[in-house]
Amino acid sequence: MPRFAFKIEYNGRPFSGWQRQTDHPSVQGAFESALARLDQTAPLVSAAGRTDAGVHAFGQVAHADMASDWDPFRLSEALNFHLKPAPIAVIGCAKVADDWHARFSAIERNYIYRLINRRAPLVHEAGLAWRVQRPLDLAAMRDGAAYLIGTHDFTTFRSTNCQAKSPLKTLDQITITEAANRCGPEITIAVRARSFLHNQVRSIVGTLEQVGSGNRMPVDVKAALESRDRAACGPVAPPDGLYLSRVRYDPEIFS
Amino acid sequence: MPRFAFKIEYNGRPFSGWQRQTDHPSVQGAFESALARLDQTAPLVSAAGRTDAGVHAFGQVAHADMASDWDPFRLSEALNFHLKPAPIAVIGCAKVADDWHARFSAIERNYIYRLINRRAPLVHEAGLAWRVQRPLDLAAMRDGAAYLIGTHDFTTFRSTNCQAKSPLKTLDQITITEAANRCGPEITIAVRARSFLHNQVRSIVGTLEQVGSGNRMPVDVKAALESRDRAACGPVAPPDGLYLSRVRYDPEIFS
Repeated sequence: MPRFAFKIEYNGRPFSGWQRQTDHPSVQGAFESALARLDQTAPLVSAAGRTDAGVHAFGQVAHADMASDWDPFRLSEALNFHLKPAPIAVIGCAKVADDWHARFSAIERNYIYRLINRRAPLVHEAGLAWRVQRPLDLAAMRDGAAYLIGTHDFTTFRSTNCQAKSPLKTLDQITITEAANRCGPEITIAVRARSFLHNQVRSIVGTLEQVGSGNRMPVDVKAALESRDRAACGPVAPPDGLYLSRVRYDPEIFS
Repeated sequence: MPRFAFKIEYNGRPFSGWQRQTDHPSVQGAFESALARLDQTAPLVSAAGRTDAGVHAFGQVAHADMASDWDPFRLSEALNFHLKPAPIAVIGCAKVADDWHARFSAIERNYIYRLINRRAPLVHEAGLAWRVQRPLDLAAMRDGAAYLIGTHDFTTFRSTNCQAKSPLKTLDQITITEAANRCGPEITIAVRARSFLHNQVRSIVGTLEQVGSGNRMPVDVKAALESRDRAACGPVAPPDGLYLSRVRYDPEIFS
């Protein structure tokens, strides 16, 4: 059975997360329902990252084994037709080797986290970014973030529900940029690693927001990391601002 | 009674438009309900532009007469509290003279129209932009738009329901720009005039999209304008991409 890889965009708001659940709408459930409309073997999908409830994606990657040898473009068009009106779209599709795996073949994951700095509630970006009312000091946030780069025990920044065997991860990059958005100044925190622990990005963002707003000093991030104590973490940032933006493979599957 | 001006942002999707209606949710209705929670005289609001169903705003301006002499910042905070969970936010508030009028004192209105050029349905921008699947030739669109600048009889580009006495309007500027959006190339058409006819912007955008996709030549826009015939207009562009972005006054009310 030919294996296909899909690059998927979704708005996480109406979903309980990527993972299929019995009683709640999930991205995986919606995607598998669309696949079942095209293929009576009802293919199952595996994703590179199991995003939490309310978390979005610009570039989730998943794979499935299909009964027929579809043309990838026609397959993506048919899936987009059957996915409507769910806020999920296939933005890339490719045939891959039988042993290629969206999760295990991934060599790098990229997330972005969007914060909008303004007083008024968000309107156009509601659910799509974290509104932070206090002005943020980006230089302080960057100084704090620098302590997290490299290989560390990230116990402080992982959910107590995290199922990873080891708290050891290598964070390759954290980039914090600001741009003018029509709704106010938008701060983007982009992170890059081979893989992440559960809630790692939102835990880091919540802690860096405290640094930016002056509740912590940049060096406090170092102390929090070294404490290996979940209690030393800032409040976990809301899912609204988090997007799985890119998953990389070698060789690349999508241009 | 002191008069206050409000700068308002809203997502037009859940509303039948700005204007209050008996049986349908409207932005004006939601705004007046919030005002009534603060002021038992139940102040009415007048807006600079009566946007249609599904049309958004970054910078609508409206005014109301309040029974009390509010501090503008506290008034905007109280209104934002009572507007929840409607996708409407007050992003500016100022006390103005008794004869100042959001509609009649306006000297210029700015709209933007957002198109996203891509094959897949929109996800994050669903309802917030017009997805155009065919690639667009921006140079051709700019050439076509140039014929519309200046004072013309815009009968071709006005709704048959338009209530303005004269079809004569002066279009000061149309700027067409492209920028990379995470979801695909985004084309923004920004227009500026003292005032607009009903459906004028969406009629112009629908016609320019036909030029961009090669269905019309740029010079056909000139012929359509000169025909003063509604039938010569392209399909009216959907409301999703349209935003009232700025209203200007002399002197300015909001920074």
